[in-house]
Amino acid sequence: MDFSSFLTSLGTSFVIFLVLMFLFTWLSRRPGNFVVYYPNRILKGLDPYEGIRLTRNPFAWIREALASTEADVINMSGVDSAVYFVFLTTVLGILVLAGLLLLPVLLPIAATSPGVKADNTTSEGSFNDIDKLSMGHIEVKSPRLWAFVAATYWISFVAYCLLWKAYKHVSNLRAAALMSPDAKHEQFGVLVRDIPPVPEGQTRKEQVDSYFKSIYPDTFYRSMVVTDGKKVNKIYDELEGYKKKLERAEIIYAESKQTSSPEGTRPTTKTGFLGLVGKKVDAIEYYDEKIKELIPKLEAERKVTLKEKQQCSALIFFTDRVTASSAAQSLHATMVDTWTVMNAPEPRQLIWTNLPKNFHEREMRQYVIYFIVFLTIFFYMIPIGLISALTTLENLKKLLPFLKPVVDQKEIKTVLEAYLPQLALIIFMALLPKFLLFLSKKEGIPTQSHVERAASGKFFYFSVLNVFIGVTIGSTLFTTMKVILKDTGKIVPLLGASLPKSATFFLTFVALKFFVGYGLELSRIVPLIIFHLKKKYLCKTEAELKEAWAPGHLGYATRVPGDLLILTIVLCYSVIAPLIIPFGVVYFGLGWLVLRNQALKVYVPSYESYGRMWPHMYKRIMTTVILFQATMLGYFAVKQFYYTPILIPLPILSFIFVFICQKKFYRFFQSTALEVASRELKEKPNMEVVFQSFVPPSLSSEKGDEDQYEDALSHVSRTGSTV
Amino acid sequence: MDFSSFLTSLGTSFVIFLVLMFLFTWLSRRPGNFVVYYPNRILKGLDPYEGIRLTRNPFAWIREALASTEADVINMSGVDSAVYFVFLTTVLGILVLAGLLLLPVLLPIAATSPGVKADNTTSEGSFNDIDKLSMGHIEVKSPRLWAFVAATYWISFVAYCLLWKAYKHVSNLRAAALMSPDAKHEQFGVLVRDIPPVPEGQTRKEQVDSYFKSIYPDTFYRSMVVTDGKKVNKIYDELEGYKKKLERAEIIYAESKQTSSPEGTRPTTKTGFLGLVGKKVDAIEYYDEKIKELIPKLEAERKVTLKEKQQCSALIFFTDRVTASSAAQSLHATMVDTWTVMNAPEPRQLIWTNLPKNFHEREMRQYVIYFIVFLTIFFYMIPIGLISALTTLENLKKLLPFLKPVVDQKEIKTVLEAYLPQLALIIFMALLPKFLLFLSKKEGIPTQSHVERAASGKFFYFSVLNVFIGVTIGSTLFTTMKVILKDTGKIVPLLGASLPKSATFFLTFVALKFFVGYGLELSRIVPLIIFHLKKKYLCKTEAELKEAWAPGHLGYATRVPGDLLILTIVLCYSVIAPLIIPFGVVYFGLGWLVLRNQALKVYVPSYESYGRMWPHMYKRIMTTVILFQATMLGYFAVKQFYYTPILIPLPILSFIFVFICQKKFYRFFQSTALEVASRELKEKPNMEVVFQSFVPPSLSSEKGDEDQYEDALSHVSRTGSTV
Repeated sequence: MDFSSFLTSLGTSFVIFLVLMFLFTWLSRRPGNFVVYYPNRILKGLDPYEGIRLTRNPFAWIREALASTEADVINMSGVDSAVYFVFLTTVLGILVLAGLLLLPVLLPIAATSPGVKADNTTSEGSFNDIDKLSMGHIEVKSPRLWAFVAATYWISFVAYCLLWKAYKHVSNLRAAALMSPDAKHEQFGVLVRDIPPVPEGQTRKEQVDSYFKSIYPDTFYRSMVVTDGKKVNKIYDELEGYKKKLERAEIIYAESKQTSSPEGTRPTTKTGFLGLVGKKVDAIEYYDEKIKELIPKLEAERKVTLKEKQQCSALIFFTDRVTASSAAQSLHATMVDTWTVMNAPEPRQLIWTNLPKNFHEREMRQYVIYFIVFLTIFFYMIPIGLISALTTLENLKKLLPFLKPVVDQKEIKTVLEAYLPQLALIIFMALLPKFLLFLSKKEGIPTQSHVERAASGKFFYFSVLNVFIGVTIGSTLFTTMKVILKDTGKIVPLLGASLPKSATFFLTFVALKFFVGYGLELSRIVPLIIFHLKKKYLCKTEAELKEAWAPGHLGYATRVPGDLLILTIVLCYSVIAPLIIPFGVVYFGLGWLVLRNQALKVYVPSYESYGRMWPHMYKRIMTTVILFQATMLGYFAVKQFYYTPILIPLPILSFIFVFICQKKFYRFFQSTALEVASRELKEKPNMEVVFQSFVPPSLSSEKGDEDQYEDALSHVSRTGSTV
Repeated sequence: MDFSSFLTSLGTSFVIFLVLMFLFTWLSRRPGNFVVYYPNRILKGLDPYEGIRLTRNPFAWIREALASTEADVINMSGVDSAVYFVFLTTVLGILVLAGLLLLPVLLPIAATSPGVKADNTTSEGSFNDIDKLSMGHIEVKSPRLWAFVAATYWISFVAYCLLWKAYKHVSNLRAAALMSPDAKHEQFGVLVRDIPPVPEGQTRKEQVDSYFKSIYPDTFYRSMVVTDGKKVNKIYDELEGYKKKLERAEIIYAESKQTSSPEGTRPTTKTGFLGLVGKKVDAIEYYDEKIKELIPKLEAERKVTLKEKQQCSALIFFTDRVTASSAAQSLHATMVDTWTVMNAPEPRQLIWTNLPKNFHEREMRQYVIYFIVFLTIFFYMIPIGLISALTTLENLKKLLPFLKPVVDQKEIKTVLEAYLPQLALIIFMALLPKFLLFLSKKEGIPTQSHVERAASGKFFYFSVLNVFIGVTIGSTLFTTMKVILKDTGKIVPLLGASLPKSATFFLTFVALKFFVGYGLELSRIVPLIIFHLKKKYLCKTEAELKEAWAPGHLGYATRVPGDLLILTIVLCYSVIAPLIIPFGVVYFGLGWLVLRNQALKVYVPSYESYGRMWPHMYKRIMTTVILFQATMLGYFAVKQFYYTPILIPLPILSFIFVFICQKKFYRFFQSTALEVASRELKEKPNMEVVFQSFVPPSLSSEKGDEDQYEDALSHVSRTGSTV
């Protein structure tokens, strides 16, 4: 790829971004689109118009984003979002500080270097302008390499300092949120799993109650045994479905009264599959009948579920926060695989079906899934390698000679060269997250936030291994396949040697990602179109309309690994080709701005884990730093630099830094410190409300069935009366 | 070494043992020796004579040992002793089950083997009878080696089964002891370390009290701030010394009244160094005066210490066991390095000087000491290797030719060959434990039991590395030094190749250890002689006499690694030379008997850790098993056995087994399960007594100083009154 095709790509991307931004400015001012551009504000009951009438400036959203404080973010979008911004700020800080020193120092050193013989760095023989500004332009064994060694150390230490500060800051954010005087329901509960089999003559409920009552006689409030809700949920969903359909049918009927005849047309439906086959009946009557039929059925199933489908897991509620968070940290039974206790998650992020999975099953599932992920990572290596090898134009021409006349046209060639490999990569990466989320859920993890963290980790390792290492080596795949086959130990020097050649590929990749990616993100073109289509042709009731504009959440499982991939690319090239640093800065800077806007106005968090995502982000940033240091070691070795071992202390330092940080800070992210939990509450919460908030909707009954003592939810237990 | 010298050694050892045992039978029946042979019973207030008058049978102690139950051991000597017997039983079980299969199967297979050419196994060319029964006698690539493979698997699986059962059993023992209805004082307390600096306007005491009161408003009882007691302890010791001397002087005076003149001779002393120099004065008056002088000094220093020498550590007492054990497991502050909380140990095993050492200092000390231990292990390697190489007679003759005429005499040669290397080794090993205990204490560990565990671990790795590997390779050191220098990677096959040659050395070593070692242990000749000498010439007062027969404790720090070294030797040779198994069985069987006797009648435990030693024993037994498996891999490779890789799953299985066991059982050994702590008490203990039991004697004052609220022990805190 030469310099002009790179500029073309950059220019096109920038134009696309500008267009999308103006589109956003224009569209977001129309009241009909407010639900798409301000759903978070609307759902919070705030005025979406605020500040909008005041200005027609297309950059107003930038000013608003910059003016917002961390407290605003926490208010509007929760601690997890605030932590995500700490992540962005930290990475941005590292790159800015790196750029401030590296750009003015390294670029002149590289540019004024006498240069190397063409056969050494670029096998294609076409030496271009960008490459002149990179470390590849320095001849081997040159003393100028000392400057690059210093740069490697500088970036490492900047990363250590900023990460240390960030970890401390996030720790404080978490503490502040957890010690807030507004009681959070989940702070009063713990989740118990792996309850041993019920002893003779007791029900599960009695077993659980008597166990916890004897340990916490004063603070135990009430327990909720987890039940197998598969059947009751099915009936409940069916009932809710009919209720929605009934509402819809009634609205259609009412509308028909206004539009066609005064008595209206009663809507009809068919009794068979999806309302498409079977006997034609009056819809309202049919749904009404179905609802009347299902209500007692649900009630009966509810009772059966509560009484007979109790599982080996329960939620326990205490009357104070300290007991709950201390219980979650304590060993209850002598064996670790029974009565496992952990903090209760928020009710909305509980994955009920995973709760009864027992300890050994969870362990086994975990290892099996790690193995599947391992296979996935290494099987995808092959297709990605092939794609990136195929999509260099030279290779395309070699493999598909009939394309040659088309591809040789200058404009087509430029565009293809600029976009083709990157697009292939982006589309490819979009298919994976769902699969990883599915796998993580199958591990038996009890909470949604944890599942997302687990998937995010898998995705990160996948991206780094496949995209970064795969593409770097893959771009010279056909020429170097022989080397790899001969000696796999040569991968590290090979990686070092291949890096500079892939630099421009990644420059384009990063630019495409930030301009087009963030442009689409900000303008919300896709959700807008979908919303308007749904509104026009599908939605009849208020609930349906609300569903159509529901904004979703930030989606850490894919967003964080995506950012980390960019960071890996930018960091690893930062010293080799410092020109990449400004691109990284723009990516994270623009990301910060756009997502600040989205967090404040659009996305609604689907859970709150009080920053538990941070240690994972931290660990992966450090993985990136270590990978950067290893790459530099390899690259200096390729440059035959005599003093390369001077870099060896860096990865060791990184490991020590990770060890110290994790030891000092990590435990507070696993459990709540009692000092924090013991802060005074504004008012003692109504424990009954706390309890009810955990009851799944399919099981919450309006009638008080409190007298049935063997029921999974019941209040009174027979403890005293059983022998 | 030939067969006759081996039999000589064995015979001599056995005779020594018999002599010692009869000596024990004879001596232990004399009432004057009761305090040496039954101190534990006497200190427990039991009748030492019980069962003795009934029989004059020299084997009566064996019957008594066999008849005793685990409950007896726990009653007389605590859970730690019972756990030590579980360890002995388990190891004995492994060896017995191994012997039952290996002896009848492998010995005939080895003996009937056609045998190898002499130049292959024994470079000395003298082929002896014992070697014929070992695996060394099987020729290379022989299909007979399959039997040895099966034996390796058999021993591994026997070890897994018995260890699993033992871990479960010990876990139950620990649970039973901890849930005992008799409240133990330490169960109501926690130890807090790393308390942050005192905030402005508060005292340390107030800081601690207000912190824990806010977290545990209902169950907090009282706190005791740790003080720097160096000076007050010095005065206290001085005072106690004078009190003892006064008592002694008074007794001497009283005796002189009876023996010489009716008015008696007043004893005198000198005021200078150790009572040897300086002015001669009347002893009773002088001591009296000194005591009167020191009492107010002590009282003053006590007040200063309690008020002004408070350290960043404290003991906190709660009114119930569940809170204490749950607090010990919970994170209190957001940073792990402040307000570190752990279970309070028994007062008698607290190492006060280590308590105020802060988190980072402890971490640093730990790594520094690991490094020192590492150096120790590898520097001792050289002398031990030299000793064992020198002490083969052949080498002695080569190096010191003037010894030749002496050594060549048949009797001297036999005795020397039998004992010389082993004695050198045993004496050498006796010097180390004190040093390792000292090092472990310097790590900043807060309890005596933990220090002993840490020292025991260091000693184990030292023994195995130096004695076993060092001697095995060292015995062929001069011939193989060249090989090691050329290629260090060859150590494993070298180890395999050297093993059979060292087999007889170790047979003798084990035999010497059990016959002479346990003979001395049982007969207690040395303590008996020391006691009688002290009684006759030194002791005057009752206290001095009691001190003279104080039996000490079992001394796990050296005993356990010693046993484990024998186990390592026996296990590693078990398949190669199955003849060693009966020796191992006798060692552990005799050990069990002798120590059962000693635990029931002699030793008094100096602390109770409720079996926390077990996970360490377990881990080291498994290390031994893995070492055995690795040795077998190496040895089969030396035998050029084609199917050697069939043994590779064994070490992997061992690691998985260790992982599973530690995961399932270990946490309960770190902290008390709440289920256990919540068992009902016979009666609620008097909290004031609990508190006072932790006050060090130098600080406990008879007067109640409760009104001094800023004092480290005081009851009432100013919490309310400070802003």
